[in-house]
Amino acid sequence: MCRWLAYSGTSVVLADLLYKPEHSLIDQSLHSRMGVETTNGDGYGVGWYGSERDTPAVIRDTGPAWNDRNLRELADHIRSPLFFAHVRASTGSAIQQTNCHPFRRGRWMWMHNGAVTDFHRLRRSLSLAVDPALFAALEGSTDSEVMFYLAITFGLDQDVPGAVARMAGLIERLGHEAGVEYPLQMTVAVSDGERLWAFRYSSLRASRSLYCSAGAETVRALHPGQEFLRGVSEGTRLVVSEPLGGLPGEWDEVPESSYGVIQPGTDDFLPFVPEPV
Amino acid sequence: MCRWLAYSGTSVVLADLLYKPEHSLIDQSLHSRMGVETTNGDGYGVGWYGSERDTPAVIRDTGPAWNDRNLRELADHIRSPLFFAHVRASTGSAIQQTNCHPFRRGRWMWMHNGAVTDFHRLRRSLSLAVDPALFAALEGSTDSEVMFYLAITFGLDQDVPGAVARMAGLIERLGHEAGVEYPLQMTVAVSDGERLWAFRYSSLRASRSLYCSAGAETVRALHPGQEFLRGVSEGTRLVVSEPLGGLPGEWDEVPESSYGVIQPGTDDFLPFVPEPV
Amino acid sequence: MCRWLAYSGTSVVLADLLYKPEHSLIDQSLHSRMGVETTNGDGYGVGWYGSERDTPAVIRDTGPAWNDRNLRELADHIRSPLFFAHVRASTGSAIQQTNCHPFRRGRWMWMHNGAVTDFHRLRRSLSLAVDPALFAALEGSTDSEVMFYLAITFGLDQDVPGAVARMAGLIERLGHEAGVEYPLQMTVAVSDGERLWAFRYSSLRASRSLYCSAGAETVRALHPGQEFLRGVSEGTRLVVSEPLGGLPGEWDEVPESSYGVIQPGTDDFLPFVPEPV
Amino acid sequence: MCRWLAYSGTSVVLADLLYKPEHSLIDQSLHSRMGVETTNGDGYGVGWYGSERDTPAVIRDTGPAWNDRNLRELADHIRSPLFFAHVRASTGSAIQQTNCHPFRRGRWMWMHNGAVTDFHRLRRSLSLAVDPALFAALEGSTDSEVMFYLAITFGLDQDVPGAVARMAGLIERLGHEAGVEYPLQMTVAVSDGERLWAFRYSSLRASRSLYCSAGAETVRALHPGQEFLRGVSEGTRLVVSEPLGGLPGEWDEVPESSYGVIQPGTDDFLPFVPEPV
Repeated sequence: MCRWLAYSGTSVVLADLLYKPEHSLIDQSLHSRMGVETTNGDGYGVGWYGSERDTPAVIRDTGPAWNDRNLRELADHIRSPLFFAHVRASTGSAIQQTNCHPFRRGRWMWMHNGAVTDFHRLRRSLSLAVDPALFAALEGSTDSEVMFYLAITFGLDQDVPGAVARMAGLIERLGHEAGVEYPLQMTVAVSDGERLWAFRYSSLRASRSLYCSAGAETVRALHPGQEFLRGVSEGTRLVVSEPLGGLPGEWDEVPESSYGVIQPGTDDFLPFVPEPV
Repeated sequence: MCRWLAYSGTSVVLADLLYKPEHSLIDQSLHSRMGVETTNGDGYGVGWYGSERDTPAVIRDTGPAWNDRNLRELADHIRSPLFFAHVRASTGSAIQQTNCHPFRRGRWMWMHNGAVTDFHRLRRSLSLAVDPALFAALEGSTDSEVMFYLAITFGLDQDVPGAVARMAGLIERLGHEAGVEYPLQMTVAVSDGERLWAFRYSSLRASRSLYCSAGAETVRALHPGQEFLRGVSEGTRLVVSEPLGGLPGEWDEVPESSYGVIQPGTDDFLPFVPEPV
Repeated sequence: MCRWLAYSGTSVVLADLLYKPEHSLIDQSLHSRMGVETTNGDGYGVGWYGSERDTPAVIRDTGPAWNDRNLRELADHIRSPLFFAHVRASTGSAIQQTNCHPFRRGRWMWMHNGAVTDFHRLRRSLSLAVDPALFAALEGSTDSEVMFYLAITFGLDQDVPGAVARMAGLIERLGHEAGVEYPLQMTVAVSDGERLWAFRYSSLRASRSLYCSAGAETVRALHPGQEFLRGVSEGTRLVVSEPLGGLPGEWDEVPESSYGVIQPGTDDFLPFVPEPV
Repeated sequence: MCRWLAYSGTSVVLADLLYKPEHSLIDQSLHSRMGVETTNGDGYGVGWYGSERDTPAVIRDTGPAWNDRNLRELADHIRSPLFFAHVRASTGSAIQQTNCHPFRRGRWMWMHNGAVTDFHRLRRSLSLAVDPALFAALEGSTDSEVMFYLAITFGLDQDVPGAVARMAGLIERLGHEAGVEYPLQMTVAVSDGERLWAFRYSSLRASRSLYCSAGAETVRALHPGQEFLRGVSEGTRLVVSEPLGGLPGEWDEVPESSYGVIQPGTDDFLPFVPEPV
C-alpha cells in the first residue's frame, strides 16, 4: 500500500537518496513498480536522527511527496546518519498527518507497509491491548500506529525482535479468533537512533517486497559521479520497499518471514516467528 | 474553545448567516468576544440538510474559516433549512479533518463547544463504553467525537435528551472515579434533519455561553435591508455560541444546565440533568 | 497534463458523473489511460451553475481529487445542469488553488488541458497583452489562466470562437517571434452558464485527446441500472479528455483543430483556425 | 499586516527564539499586540542559512504557525546563525505558499511587513519594471514579491541599500503618477547569508513598528535560565516587528525612515531615502 526507505550509515544529505536516484522513493510516490498500488500520493513522512541520535525530527504531511516543495527544501538541507522516509497509499483511512509514517515515541521511529486484514473489526480489541497509559497517545486511525504502540507495550525498549514478534502474535491470535484467516501483512522499519531493524512478514507467507542494499558499493553505485558517496562507510545500508536506480543486482531481497538488524558487520537476516501472547 | 451556529427554519443561503451579519461566525473565527480563546482558527466545518432532510452534507477543513475561499463559495451557493457551522480552537489535539465538527453518522449531525476535563486520562474508558460495533468509526482524537458516539450508543435515535443525559452521566461518573472534580463542559447541537436540539451544561454549572434568537424578528433584524429575510417563518431560530450582529437584546441566553428542541411553537428550555449510567 | 470533464444537459447530481462511471474522472486522477501523465494528483477543481445559471460556484483545492472527502460530499449533494471538473498534473508550476481549474470571471468558467510551450519565456509578453484593467486579476502562475484572460481581452463576452481564435493567434505569433516552433497545445472548455463551448487545437496538429458523448444514450448507458439517467434530455452531452466507462463506441472523438458549441440540436464541430492579432 | 523576526549571530536552535520567549513570534501569530491585525494566521515561513551560508532553506506553508507541528519539529532540530521567520496576515491576496515570506532567489532572502497602497492598480506597472528575464520567476500575487524582484532588478547584488532605495523610489513615483498619496509602507529584512539588512520606511512617515535587540544581553535575557544563550557573541542581534518577552527596555526601536546592517560592531541606523528612478 505504501513504499518506504530506511538509511543507516555515513551521514548524507537526504536529497541524495530521496531525489537523485533514478527510481527514487519520490518517483515511487508517483509510479511505483512493485507496489499493490502504483500511486502513493496520500501523504508522506520523513524522520531523521541528528548527529546526537536522540529524539528524531519527524515531518509528515497529507499531500503527495512528489510535488511538495517543503520536502524538497528539507531534503536538500538536512544531513543525517539514520533516517526514514515513507510515501503512503491509503486504503480508506483518513488523509491526515496522524495517519502518516513514520510514527515516533521518544527516540523510537516506526514505519510500516502492509495491513492488518479487516482492521476495522480488530481495531477495538487491538487498541485495548495497548498499555492503558499509552492509549491516549493514539492520534490517528491506522493499523500501523496501533502496531507501533503494541510493540512498545510488548517491550520494544528492551527487546526489539521479541516485542515485534509478540505484536504479530497478538494480531494473529485476535485475528484468528475473529475469523480472519491471514491477519497480518507487514514490512516494518524501526529504530532507536543507534540501530535499525527491518522486518518482513505476512500470515500468508507472501509478504510485501523488501530489499536491502548489498553493501556500501550499492549506495555508491547509485550515483557513480557523485563525490558525496565516495566516502560512505562499509556498514552503510539502505532498506527499501523496492530497489532504487537501475541496479537490481546490487540489492538483496530480504527473505520471506525474516528480520535483521542493520549494523556494521552483520547483514544476516534471521527467521521471524510471531510469538503467541 | 470553539464557536458554533445552528440554524433551523425557512431555507436560506448559508452566506446570509455565516458572512453577512456584523459579528458573524466567520468574524468570530478571527476574533471571538466571549470565547475562552479569541481566535478560532484550527479548522472549521459546515453541515447542511437539503430539502429532503436526509443524510446531510458535511464539509470540514483544517485551515481557518476566515480565509477559506471554498467555504465562501459554498456559503454563497448552498441553500438549506437546517445547517450547522463550527469554528475550532484546538487545545492540543491534532489539526485534522476528523477532529473538526460537525460530526455525522447517518442522518445525525453533532457539534460541540467545551471539553471533557483531562480527556487524555479518560479517553480509554470512554472509548470502551462506545458500542463495540461503532468503535472503528472513531476517526479522530477529540472528546467531542467520543461524546457523539456515546450518545449514539445510549440511544440518540430513540431519545435525544435521554441519550445526551446518559452520555453526560457516564462522563461525570468516570471522571469522578478518576479524580476529576468537574469532568464535563459542553454546549452541544444535534439534529436528525427534522429537529434541532441544543444543550448547555457543565459539571461546574458555569457553562460556555449559548444564545438562541428570540424570534424570527431577530433573524430578520440581522439585515434590515435584506429582502431574503423578510419571509422567514415564525419558527425560524438561530442558536449560537455568541450573538451575531449588534443586537444583544434580541437574543435569549440559553439557561444554565438546560436543553431545548428548536421547533415551531416551543421555545422552552428544560432543565438538563445528567443521568447516571 | 490534466484531465477534464464538462457536462451540459438535464440537471444531475455531480457524483453520478464524477464518481459512479467505471473509468470516472476521479479514477483518471489516479491512473489516466490516455494522458501524457498517468497521475493527475496536483489539485482539482469543480465549478457548477445553479438553476439560475448565473455566477457559478467554483471549488478548487491543491490535493488529489481521489482522496478528497469534501469533494465527495459536494458531488453527492450538488445538482447542476452545467458543470466542469478538472484534475491537474502540474509540469512545474506551483501547487496552489489559484493554479487550479476551472478559472472563473463573472459568469464565465474556463478550463484547459495542454500547455503554452516555453511559457516561462512567453509569460511576460502574454501577460502584457492582457487588458491592463484585468492584469491585477491574475492570481496564479499558469499559462491556462493567462489564456483565459487573453480570451476575455479579445472579446469572449461577444464572440467566444473569435476570442479564443485571437488568443491562439497571439500565442502563436509571440511564440514564433520567440523562436518556439509549436507554441500552443490545448483542449479548452468555456461556458457562460447558458452554452458550453469545447476547443481542440495544437500548433503541431497533434492535440490532446478530446471526446464528446454521442448522444443522450451514452450518458444513460454509463449506468444502465440508474434511475436518474433515464430522463436526461436529448441534448445532454459530456465532453471529456478521455472516455468514461467501458463504452468507447459511444464517444465521438472531437476532430483535430476544431471547436463546437454543445447545445441541443447541433453537434457539429467546426474547424478552428487561430486568428492573427 | 504581518509579523517577522530576523536573527543573526551565534548559531542557535530555531525553537529557542521562535517558541521559547514569552511573547514569541509564534505567540504573535495568535495575538499580536502592536500589529494592524491581531491575528497573523494566513501562512508562515522560515528560512535559514546553514553553516556554509550559501543558498538558504525556505519552508513556507499556508496554515497558521501556531498549530503547525512540522514547524515545531523543524524549529527543534534546525540550528542556524542567520534565519528569518514570518507570520502572515493577508489583506486579500490568496492564501498560498508563493505568497508567503521569506522569498528567496539564489542566496538572497527577503521578507516584508506592510503594503504597496492600492497594489491592484500599480501591480502591472511595477511588474513591468522587473527585469524581463526575472518576470517568469514571479509565482505569487503579493506586493512583497514584486518589491523583492524590483530590488534585485535595481542591483541588490551590488548595493543593498541603493537597490532598496530605488525600489522604493519607483513605487513612490508610479504611485504618485497613479494618484496614490502614500504609496509605500514597509519594514523589510534582507540577507545574503553573510549580512542582514533591516529597513523601516513609509511614504507617510508612520511606519510599521520595528525593533532591534540592544545587545547580546537582550537575547540572553530572554531566557535567563537557558544554558544555550550564555555563549552568544556580542554581535548577536534580533530584529523584530514587535519585542519578544517582557523586556521592552532591552529593545531599541528602529528609527523612522532608516535602515541598518546588522553586523558585529555597528548598530547604527542610517536615514533611508527613496531614490527616484
